Amino acid sequence: MKNKLLAAALTAAVFGGASLEAYAQAKPDVLVKQRQAAMILQGKYLGPIGAMLKGARPYDADVVATYATFLENLARMPWDGFDPSTKGEKSKTKPEVFTDTAKFKAAGDLLESETAKLGAAARAKNEAGVKVAFGGVAKACGGCHDSFREK
Amino acid sequence: MKNKLLAAALTAAVFGGASLEAYAQAKPDVLVKQRQAAMILQGKYLGPIGAMLKGARPYDADVVATYATFLENLARMPWDGFDPSTKGEKSKTKPEVFTDTAKFKAAGDLLESETAKLGAAARAKNEAGVKVAFGGVAKACGGCHDSFREK
Repeated sequence: MKNKLLAAALTAAVFGGASLEAYAQAKPDVLVKQRQAAMILQGKYLGPIGAMLKGARPYDADVVATYATFLENLARMPWDGFDPSTKGEKSKTKPEVFTDTAKFKAAGDLLESETAKLGAAARAKNEAGVKVAFGGVAKACGGCHDSFREK
Repeated sequence: MKNKLLAAALTAAVFGGASLEAYAQAKPDVLVKQRQAAMILQGKYLGPIGAMLKGARPYDADVVATYATFLENLARMPWDGFDPSTKGEKSKTKPEVFTDTAKFKAAGDLLESETAKLGAAARAKNEAGVKVAFGGVAKACGGCHDSFREK
C-alpha cells in the first residue's frame, strides 16, 4: 500500500501522469531525448575542464574532481538509448549504430574506461594525470562521433 | 602546445566548432537545455526504481545501486542552470525560482541529500532503506515542482 502511494506520488510529481510502467518501457522518442540529454551534460562538464587545461580558466582541482566524476557517470548513460526501436527517430545518429553494433559497443566502452581514468586522476588531484586522461576522453568522443554521428 | 591541440581536438569533436570559452560561459538557451537534460535523466533512472518498488518489475539490487548512484550525481547537476540570465527563456520554470532564491536553494539541497541517502541505501543493498529513501526523493521532487514548475 505504502509503495503504491509512493509510486503514485512520484508519477504525479515527476512524470506528469505518465505511468511508471510506461517509463520502464520507454518510447523511441523518449529514448532519443534521454540519450541526447546524456550527451548534452557530457558537453557541459567536458567544456570547463578543457578550458582549464588550455589555460583559459584557472585550474581548480576540486571542480575538476566533481566534473570528472559526473562525466564518469554520464558516460554510462547514453548507450541503452540507442535501442533498435529508435531507428526511425530524427537525430544525428548514423545507421551504422544499428548495423555495426560491435564497433559501436567498443566505442561506448572506450568512453566509459577513459572517463573512469579521468575521474580517478581528478579525484587524486593529479593534474598531470588529468591532462593525459582528458586527451583519451577527447579521442574517445571524436572517434565515436566520426563513425556514428552525422556532421 | 599539447594542451592547445587537445582543446582543439575536443572543440571539433564535441562542440562542433563552438569554442571552449563559449561553453565555459554558457548562453541562456544552452543553460536551459542543460538543466532540462538533468531532469530528463533523473526521470530515466527514477522511473525503473519506482516500478521495482511498486512490484511492476522484479527488484534488481544491482540495477538499483547503479541507478541510485546516477541519481545522486544527477541531482547535483541542474542548479547552476537556473542562472538569472535564463529568465527570458521558454521553459516551465516559474518566476519564483529567481525571486524566492533561498527556498529554491533549499529545495535543490533537499533533493541532493535525499538522493544521497537513496544512493547509500542502494549501494548497501538495503532494500528496506531504498524504499524509505525513495519516498524522500519523490517528496523532494514533488515539493520543488509544486513551488517552482508550471503544471
